[in-house]
Amino acid sequence: MSEPVLLAKYLIETAQSVERTAEVIAGEQSSGTFVAVPGETEELKRRSRARVVSIEALETVSQPSLPGSRIGDHSTEFQRAEVTIEFPLQNFGLNLPTVLATVCGNLFELSDHSGCKLLDVEIPSVFAERYPGPQFGVRGTRELTAVFGRPVIGTIVKPSVGLTPEQTAELVRTLGEAGIDFVKDDELMADPPHSPLKKRVELVMREINRLADRTGRKLMYAVNISDELDAMRRHHDCVLAAGGTCVMVSLNHVGFAGVSQLRQYCQLPIHGHRNGWGMWTRHPVLGMEFTAYQKFWRAIGVDHLHVNGLQNKFWEPDDSVVRSIKAMREPMWGGYESMPVVSSGQWGGQAPETLRRTGTQDLIYVAGGGIMAHPLGPAAGLRAIQQAWQAAADGVPLEKFAMQHEELRLTLEKFGQTK
Amino acid sequence: MSEPVLLAKYLIETAQSVERTAEVIAGEQSSGTFVAVPGETEELKRRSRARVVSIEALETVSQPSLPGSRIGDHSTEFQRAEVTIEFPLQNFGLNLPTVLATVCGNLFELSDHSGCKLLDVEIPSVFAERYPGPQFGVRGTRELTAVFGRPVIGTIVKPSVGLTPEQTAELVRTLGEAGIDFVKDDELMADPPHSPLKKRVELVMREINRLADRTGRKLMYAVNISDELDAMRRHHDCVLAAGGTCVMVSLNHVGFAGVSQLRQYCQLPIHGHRNGWGMWTRHPVLGMEFTAYQKFWRAIGVDHLHVNGLQNKFWEPDDSVVRSIKAMREPMWGGYESMPVVSSGQWGGQAPETLRRTGTQDLIYVAGGGIMAHPLGPAAGLRAIQQAWQAAADGVPLEKFAMQHEELRLTLEKFGQTK
Repeated sequence: MSEPVLLAKYLIETAQSVERTAEVIAGEQSSGTFVAVPGETEELKRRSRARVVSIEALETVSQPSLPGSRIGDHSTEFQRAEVTIEFPLQNFGLNLPTVLATVCGNLFELSDHSGCKLLDVEIPSVFAERYPGPQFGVRGTRELTAVFGRPVIGTIVKPSVGLTPEQTAELVRTLGEAGIDFVKDDELMADPPHSPLKKRVELVMREINRLADRTGRKLMYAVNISDELDAMRRHHDCVLAAGGTCVMVSLNHVGFAGVSQLRQYCQLPIHGHRNGWGMWTRHPVLGMEFTAYQKFWRAIGVDHLHVNGLQNKFWEPDDSVVRSIKAMREPMWGGYESMPVVSSGQWGGQAPETLRRTGTQDLIYVAGGGIMAHPLGPAAGLRAIQQAWQAAADGVPLEKFAMQHEELRLTLEKFGQTK
Repeated sequence: MSEPVLLAKYLIETAQSVERTAEVIAGEQSSGTFVAVPGETEELKRRSRARVVSIEALETVSQPSLPGSRIGDHSTEFQRAEVTIEFPLQNFGLNLPTVLATVCGNLFELSDHSGCKLLDVEIPSVFAERYPGPQFGVRGTRELTAVFGRPVIGTIVKPSVGLTPEQTAELVRTLGEAGIDFVKDDELMADPPHSPLKKRVELVMREINRLADRTGRKLMYAVNISDELDAMRRHHDCVLAAGGTCVMVSLNHVGFAGVSQLRQYCQLPIHGHRNGWGMWTRHPVLGMEFTAYQKFWRAIGVDHLHVNGLQNKFWEPDDSVVRSIKAMREPMWGGYESMPVVSSGQWGGQAPETLRRTGTQDLIYVAGGGIMAHPLGPAAGLRAIQQAWQAAADGVPLEKFAMQHEELRLTLEKFGQTK
């Protein structure tokens, strides 16, 4: 009787009894109904009912975090707790969209709580039978870029939108000649009239292929193919035919089944962009933690996954970014490794702290303005970031390393002050 | 120069200047970078930059709604405002996943605000060239169910999970014999080992077809086909071959491109379930309003869309439910009508208020326990709901109507007290 189970850990907040609230969630998301119905036998409940495995009380707060919760008559305390619930595999089978409907479906709506966030899931390894995971992951990305022993260093084509294919190709050539490992489209840039993907890929890949012929090393260009599925297949084929080595997808807006379908078809690494993610996680007791989120995408087979970066320009604290990188480095089903993409306001200065706190250089390190707006131009911006990672790896303070490295010195001068 | 534009309206909250914050959002989601870069010419900005169209200041609050916002040194006021931003169509073309990356992408992450919610979008009608909209909508659903002049009345198979295909078929037969118009699977029930979809559809449709042969009217069964895309196609074909007339999908977990792909293939109405929606909207200044959400799904072509119900068991206030139903009844691109699905804790008692506040009976009215747990059984539960809608349409108070209608009387007795 060791039927596999799926575990889901939540942070909840409630003015009612935590035990009761946990039971309501378990019931609502399995065999429960709001009134007892004839078919709801004891035998059925034994087979199908989700089970509250553990409850750990945390702090209380004096105001409800979300509106619409039922409040006891005299309650001025809202208890927070971590709750783990176990779902029988037979409730959904190997079907991730329905797992999602189960562990992050209608439970956010319940008036029994004033906050509910999915912190983590433990998906049984039998799912590996259906979900193949990343095709390339860390190792495949390193092989394709020929970058070993340090982060893959990249940039985003900026401005995000507005450049013509010709301008984009020219920019990529400049970056490629400077020795960059990786370039990506912005998530806003897919296949718009002013820069049709086919034309852009043709012109950019011509530059990349020329350069590769010269250097023997091919710059990885993550082409944003986010679109309807037929178009994504067409875009993928276009990238592949042009000798491209990566496609990028806006995960939340293409969606789980769409990316999963692409994975089946895809012959290139999938660069997963999580834009819109703030909606899922910025509130402390609503939505989903990245720890849970990244497991679904790794199962589906995303090779790279954005994690924001230390000292980023967004709301997210460093602790959360570090937690995300660490979560991605935890093996899943014996592997399923995907490469964290460190991005947002990065300019090299964060290299030592990123390495110190995460212990890894198995990262794609993406700097936008940090490279493009270097006083001596993009090539110098790139060299400055390479120097910063070299200093971090050598354990030499950036300021010291900068004494012999002009590009890093200028970068520190320009961006070091803004923090 | 009347290039079509897309308008997005936001509720924002910020401790900084509202004007500046609106400009940051417009910049970040179009041609902006966090530092000026060489390619960012005036000409490019003129073509590509999103434009702040209007700002309407609302109330201030004394605490930030979300963590991580930048706060001026002495600020204790957080201004809320409605902001409308105009995006040039040429930034994305007819590509809804990229429209989503634009209007609800990385902007939730910005530290310039302490709250941001997408309230509404106005998508130019040129999108109709690519997005076909609902195949069946209200009219097609009424024709398939042969229900006119009143809501399509339905129920959810409960318990949500755990019943065998045989038990499900038996239950549907009972409901069908009682005259129900519509039955749906729960969002938790898709194709699990204990109730394989193929077997369930075969047994349930046998009952439905037999009954239809007798009565000349076919009960619509929304089969939850949520799964990976290949499986969804297979499930769809199975439903179609068995004479079924509806498929159901968990929209948020299959995702935009997945449902859009299904729509291309599908020969049946798509019943759109929004489970997980609480995560998107429960917080007052984070995420998305249903008014915006439903437009994307109508464009893609969902025929039915869940809107919760008045006096529901969830957190959502009635005003919000009414707003959702009204939003769905606003014509889009000259039509694109989709049928609101009223559900959650419904038992008939909400019929008069639902009709009064929304002015429509073009609804699928779904009651779970309200039908199944009627003291005289499901058939009586169904008749009670039919009686409640009849009373509402006739403008007769339920209590008065119940004097001559035993089933309604018993329903009022059982469920009328719990509210």
